[in-house]
Amino acid sequence: AEANVAVGLSRLGHRARMASVVADNALGESAVGELRRHGVDTSAIKSVGGRMGLYFLTTGAIQRPSEVLYDRAASAFANFDPAGYDWGSILTGASWLHLSGVTPAVGANASAACVAAAEAARPLGVKVSFDGNYRAQLWKTWNGDGPAVLKRILAQAEIAFINERDIELILKTTFKAADPETRRARTFEAAFAAFPALKMLAATVRTQHGADHHELSGGLATRSGMVRSRTYALAGIVDRIGAGDAFAAGVHHGLIAGKGEQYAIDFGVAAAALKHSIAGDFNLATVRQIEETMAGEALDVRR
Amino acid sequence: AEANVAVGLSRLGHRARMASVVADNALGESAVGELRRHGVDTSAIKSVGGRMGLYFLTTGAIQRPSEVLYDRAASAFANFDPAGYDWGSILTGASWLHLSGVTPAVGANASAACVAAAEAARPLGVKVSFDGNYRAQLWKTWNGDGPAVLKRILAQAEIAFINERDIELILKTTFKAADPETRRARTFEAAFAAFPALKMLAATVRTQHGADHHELSGGLATRSGMVRSRTYALAGIVDRIGAGDAFAAGVHHGLIAGKGEQYAIDFGVAAAALKHSIAGDFNLATVRQIEETMAGEALDVRR
Amino acid sequence: AEANVAVGLSRLGHRARMASVVADNALGESAVGELRRHGVDTSAIKSVGGRMGLYFLTTGAIQRPSEVLYDRAASAFANFDPAGYDWGSILTGASWLHLSGVTPAVGANASAACVAAAEAARPLGVKVSFDGNYRAQLWKTWNGDGPAVLKRILAQAEIAFINERDIELILKTTFKAADPETRRARTFEAAFAAFPALKMLAATVRTQHGADHHELSGGLATRSGMVRSRTYALAGIVDRIGAGDAFAAGVHHGLIAGKGEQYAIDFGVAAAALKHSIAGDFNLATVRQIEETMAGEALDVRR
Amino acid sequence: AEANVAVGLSRLGHRARMASVVADNALGESAVGELRRHGVDTSAIKSVGGRMGLYFLTTGAIQRPSEVLYDRAASAFANFDPAGYDWGSILTGASWLHLSGVTPAVGANASAACVAAAEAARPLGVKVSFDGNYRAQLWKTWNGDGPAVLKRILAQAEIAFINERDIELILKTTFKAADPETRRARTFEAAFAAFPALKMLAATVRTQHGADHHELSGGLATRSGMVRSRTYALAGIVDRIGAGDAFAAGVHHGLIAGKGEQYAIDFGVAAAALKHSIAGDFNLATVRQIEETMAGEALDVRR
Amino acid sequence: AEANVAVGLSRLGHRARMASVVADNALGESAVGELRRHGVDTSAIKSVGGRMGLYFLTTGAIQRPSEVLYDRAASAFANFDPAGYDWGSILTGASWLHLSGVTPAVGANASAACVAAAEAARPLGVKVSFDGNYRAQLWKTWNGDGPAVLKRILAQAEIAFINERDIELILKTTFKAADPETRRARTFEAAFAAFPALKMLAATVRTQHGADHHELSGGLATRSGMVRSRTYALAGIVDRIGAGDAFAAGVHHGLIAGKGEQYAIDFGVAAAALKHSIAGDFNLATVRQIEETMAGEALDVRR
Amino acid sequence: AEANVAVGLSRLGHRARMASVVADNALGESAVGELRRHGVDTSAIKSVGGRMGLYFLTTGAIQRPSEVLYDRAASAFANFDPAGYDWGSILTGASWLHLSGVTPAVGANASAACVAAAEAARPLGVKVSFDGNYRAQLWKTWNGDGPAVLKRILAQAEIAFINERDIELILKTTFKAADPETRRARTFEAAFAAFPALKMLAATVRTQHGADHHELSGGLATRSGMVRSRTYALAGIVDRIGAGDAFAAGVHHGLIAGKGEQYAIDFGVAAAALKHSIAGDFNLATVRQIEETMAGEALDVRR
Repeated sequence: AEANVAVGLSRLGHRARMASVVADNALGESAVGELRRHGVDTSAIKSVGGRMGLYFLTTGAIQRPSEVLYDRAASAFANFDPAGYDWGSILTGASWLHLSGVTPAVGANASAACVAAAEAARPLGVKVSFDGNYRAQLWKTWNGDGPAVLKRILAQAEIAFINERDIELILKTTFKAADPETRRARTFEAAFAAFPALKMLAATVRTQHGADHHELSGGLATRSGMVRSRTYALAGIVDRIGAGDAFAAGVHHGLIAGKGEQYAIDFGVAAAALKHSIAGDFNLATVRQIEETMAGEALDVRR
Repeated sequence: AEANVAVGLSRLGHRARMASVVADNALGESAVGELRRHGVDTSAIKSVGGRMGLYFLTTGAIQRPSEVLYDRAASAFANFDPAGYDWGSILTGASWLHLSGVTPAVGANASAACVAAAEAARPLGVKVSFDGNYRAQLWKTWNGDGPAVLKRILAQAEIAFINERDIELILKTTFKAADPETRRARTFEAAFAAFPALKMLAATVRTQHGADHHELSGGLATRSGMVRSRTYALAGIVDRIGAGDAFAAGVHHGLIAGKGEQYAIDFGVAAAALKHSIAGDFNLATVRQIEETMAGEALDVRR
Repeated sequence: AEANVAVGLSRLGHRARMASVVADNALGESAVGELRRHGVDTSAIKSVGGRMGLYFLTTGAIQRPSEVLYDRAASAFANFDPAGYDWGSILTGASWLHLSGVTPAVGANASAACVAAAEAARPLGVKVSFDGNYRAQLWKTWNGDGPAVLKRILAQAEIAFINERDIELILKTTFKAADPETRRARTFEAAFAAFPALKMLAATVRTQHGADHHELSGGLATRSGMVRSRTYALAGIVDRIGAGDAFAAGVHHGLIAGKGEQYAIDFGVAAAALKHSIAGDFNLATVRQIEETMAGEALDVRR
Repeated sequence: AEANVAVGLSRLGHRARMASVVADNALGESAVGELRRHGVDTSAIKSVGGRMGLYFLTTGAIQRPSEVLYDRAASAFANFDPAGYDWGSILTGASWLHLSGVTPAVGANASAACVAAAEAARPLGVKVSFDGNYRAQLWKTWNGDGPAVLKRILAQAEIAFINERDIELILKTTFKAADPETRRARTFEAAFAAFPALKMLAATVRTQHGADHHELSGGLATRSGMVRSRTYALAGIVDRIGAGDAFAAGVHHGLIAGKGEQYAIDFGVAAAALKHSIAGDFNLATVRQIEETMAGEALDVRR
Repeated sequence: AEANVAVGLSRLGHRARMASVVADNALGESAVGELRRHGVDTSAIKSVGGRMGLYFLTTGAIQRPSEVLYDRAASAFANFDPAGYDWGSILTGASWLHLSGVTPAVGANASAACVAAAEAARPLGVKVSFDGNYRAQLWKTWNGDGPAVLKRILAQAEIAFINERDIELILKTTFKAADPETRRARTFEAAFAAFPALKMLAATVRTQHGADHHELSGGLATRSGMVRSRTYALAGIVDRIGAGDAFAAGVHHGLIAGKGEQYAIDFGVAAAALKHSIAGDFNLATVRQIEETMAGEALDVRR
Repeated sequence: AEANVAVGLSRLGHRARMASVVADNALGESAVGELRRHGVDTSAIKSVGGRMGLYFLTTGAIQRPSEVLYDRAASAFANFDPAGYDWGSILTGASWLHLSGVTPAVGANASAACVAAAEAARPLGVKVSFDGNYRAQLWKTWNGDGPAVLKRILAQAEIAFINERDIELILKTTFKAADPETRRARTFEAAFAAFPALKMLAATVRTQHGADHHELSGGLATRSGMVRSRTYALAGIVDRIGAGDAFAAGVHHGLIAGKGEQYAIDFGVAAAALKHSIAGDFNLATVRQIEETMAGEALDVRR
């Protein structure tokens, strides 16, 4: 997930460095090469003995949802000693550290490394960005206490990409409301209350008419209110994987651009919407394409 | 068609045996292997000299319907002497014999074999299931009297998967009504009257907005009334071939499960709906997937 | 574009000859072979030194429009001396000369050749058909005066496939109106006024809900009025390239059939609609398929 | 086989017309289009009801020979009434009629048509060319008397592409000799004696070191002696099917070129050798490529 | 490896049952289906939680050897409790138990299971067949004592497919000799001395001229002498993986056929040679194909 | 060609920077990404308006040589003003500047840029490496004086990868000798005499038995003598393009390793030999693989 965000940011014109561990074999080398191809700084990726984590995707259609078969157990990354990361050096020069909730879900070592990274960042002046991404299947494989770990990371975050369900899991409460918007508002309020460092919360809203036919919008909340994007109808989805990461990269791009929160959420949701039309996990859309999408430009062949 | 039903039932956990004839060459061997792969008992398939029947499918889209180009003339199956099947032995241990109307349409020998099978089954305590599947193109190639043959088979059936058009062809009448539901009711009533052995009639209702955009629902009638399923919108159809066979297998599974007729029709239609999302003639959906579809569970990626 | 029209007409049963220039290498030979395969007379295609013009298509989806990357600069065709075409000989036996606005956009030589062809045709008793197809990207590469060139060709045309935008560019005015239909009427009126030779104007109307989800209809105007086709919903577009050429070929077929203007526009739009379901630039649909589409026949599998 | 020769000759710059029967469906249309693409005159191909003959090829390697699974029974071509060909019209303007022994092997009607064509040709001043191509598998399917039919065709031929085995079958004798060359000489002598119209006999000699590693040479005999080509080592064969037809087309080209028999056999064998490097049945090699092969030019990348 | 032998035997007409453990997911289900397709009895394969072992193959060419990247650590099979196999039930009705040295190399549990199986077999009257297959890479991943484990299995074997290198590893000696044949004889002599139950030793001899160009022969030794096969030149190897398993299945077929040891080694080596021409791990060659290879029949297209 | 050398060196562990010009479109971006993926520093590649140069490769087999169809005319690179390269900045930190004779062959601007680069390098302390690569087809397209341009570049080179034919073209003489080795020696002697800066000459020797069956060896000469590699038989060549660049990168690696000239030529030729087994222009072989090839290690599957 973090790699997707790194590639997304790199292609939008920002500098991104990936810190990770890969297997020292052809699969690991290929993964690193793909990141480098898209301009990501791979100098903080270690290559060590062991296996690469994998997953298999069966792409769904109509009433049949896509299915992910995780095969990440006992990977070189999952087994890597958390003490092996030198966060001081890795974070040098960074403005933001972005972490996804998928990563600590891989195992105890990964959990420890994520928490350590998050807690190292702020003293170094590096802001923390966190994407909830709670994956029950993964936490279950090693009986990890997902909510507790995510809570420690979220406590360090200045911005979080997280929906109501994940906040509820972390806060161990449920927020009832007459309508979804009110429920979202209450949940976000509780999150801001629980995590003093938190300045922004962003989340998409996804309605599913079919496995390949969704609707997508999103909202960005600060302690003083929420802005919302338009809603995109996504019929004939090509590949939905990575849309959340495209959203995170897009919102960050929008915020860095300094054009305000409305621009940031509009850019983030348009980036996420475009991702659904692109095969593979990476969002390859350019700033021009995303802004044309935001502007609702004509969709006939460009020639 | 029968092979599709056999595979569907096998994958839903039932024992299925296929009785057929294939060419004793690489194509015939491959066909048998595919059935065995999905757990079908292939011990009653004979391999003899001659050619394999084939068909070519041009998959449609939007306003262009899919087209089947049949190439089944003079196949090993079509030429096989109907006396060569030993129905007493083939049907040993079976609860049901399932026949499709496509099979007798292949030629005079196939017609004779299907009628013989249907008429042999009941004295052996094996119930007959019949899927109308009238294919005008095939009957025309040898000037076969389709309605007469299908009538003899239907006369033996306890359950038939058959729509109004095929019943009308067989009974040589047309049933007019102000609305489709009344027309279906009248047609089914006439079928129950004409065929005393018949206990159940099942049929899907299909509306076509485009070659790859249908709506699908279905009904299951007994002599005391009809139950109906919900309607599924099927946009972006992957492969519609075999949906009728998925329906038949699904209804049989539902009936065997003993959860009542409503469950049976719901399961059958959900199975048929899922088939549209799966490439190839076979319905590979599992009981879990079909029941999730019936339950309307969320359609986002499972991970 | 002209090759697409030629193939379309040939497959609808008409004789079509292509006049062009290809590179004398494997790419040029392959292009000529493809036309010959579909029955187009290729005797007027010259094979000379140089490169083949190319273009690269990135097929869009959902919110991401398809993009054409033109690579036609300095091609054998673009460089060919316009004096090298012997229009008297090329046009022998022809009823119509069809030209597309894409062709002169390739360069000065191509512009000169197109104008020469158009101006040679009428004295030889060959009627001129013109498809506007203004491509800003191409004219820009060599600073060609597109509107001026297209105006000279249009001045010779008896039928033009051209929309409001292209007429406005050529006439250097804009036509305002309360609604699109009135605007179209005013624009067409101005075109008939400006070009005395013009007897018919035809254009499609395209609404884009997504890159692969359009609506399509069309109108055919004479000096005495306009007929309109039904509107087709095109969801899940396979390949939209060549739809305009399918429209032009379809309208010509309809007019030649002598069944009146309503038939001609209905046939042309149905042909264009079907093209969206066919991969590749050529419209492979047959008269039977197009007429079934016009008749709104059922869209389930033909078997 | 005849189609391969026609395409070969067309690509070598000669006019070739194909007389045949195809099914009036998408498969038949596609076959005709392929011939037209390569410049063959398809005006004498009829399209009628029925099925296309097919065959399936499993490409061999190393010790595993390629296998052809014929599926030609009951095809539109095999069923076509031999009276339906108007040889006077078909042969108009032709110098040569080329027939292959595969064709009559398809069935009684095809046999009758081939004999009729061969016997019609000479009175019309059209010379007959015949390629033995005895296919035991095919004759067996309908108990045809292959040797008798081939004998009637060979009796009309001025040139025959035929090896010792096929001559022996036709003459119902065997020719023993101490070495292969003497055996070939004796067999050819007997053929010249038996068939007074025969002026030339040509055959390749093929040694098989593996399914994809052959050696190939050839000889061309007149009543006054034999010329022989060099031997080509063919390691890593891409597709051997059609090599015999490439040989026949190449020898004809060489003879038409009027450069003598040595050139003719050299050209024919070089064409056949090149065919082994080209996927598909057709020999796409050009005169330039074949002459470079004859000249033994360097085989490194041309650039 | 055992699955390859099972499929090979099944396709040669023998009954084969596979005992194993797969992951209860789509990958495990697919693996079992492939075996069933080829007629292997899969009733003794358990499906349990965990991951499927995988491997990645980079196919070599010329001077670049193929490389296998094992990813079998922590698989459902490797983790499975050896007490979970009920060998009494699994072996019911079997004549032979075949084990490969790859299997215990996967981990301690797999080692224990293999030894248990081998030691359970003989008291049940089931003979043991063993294929050495020492894989250093795998034993290293868990610091297993390969030679010790293989020794215990070999001690139970009546026939072993094993070369000099593996015998030396197990016996912890090296056998020097002036020539390879003498070395093989001495090594085999030592094995027969060390393992009283052993009745036969079989091994191939492989010379590598390139990654895809080998020579292959083989020998079968009893306590009274050795028979040897001819040598096959294998140029243009398609897929060498599984050749050893094809050899083992072929030798077993030959022995069961009761045509003597020379036939058995000839059949085994011909089967192994043919495997090099077939993509995938399974040997799909039939008895007819293998016997034709033994007979050195012509290698041109069969038609 | 230079990109291939850069990738080759990068993968062998060296730092490589590419200076070039690409089109500012998807094709240019993709080309740059591929280099970055393999670790090449792409900061000196400019992206400007225009088209990408292309070439089309038809891969040969047996007697049919591969053919390159160049489509490089009027590319962004060919049109780029040579004054636009700032060689002082580009060469900063470099030890070597490597140029290929393909590059100036593209056009007058490219020629001027190559000469300027070569002449700028030495004063900056950057040694020049040159690969002859005379491509007659390209020089002909613009009537460039290839020998004159190559002579100016060669005059700056310290090492040249160049064969007898190219030296003769540049020196405008021919060197006759009784045997190839003597001819090579004389030619190299003349080159050393003509170009005082030259310290080393390296060249492969290639014998072609077929388009995909070569033999390859090589020699490296200094002013005091020549060392030669062993000869590799390359049967079943996968992709021969880029072998010369793999050779240049390999020799440079060998020289940098400081293990002497024999090691350098052995490493270079082994790298070039391995390239023939790898699809695509880049040599992906690692130092380990190349050294194993030099050592003649066994070629069976590594597992």
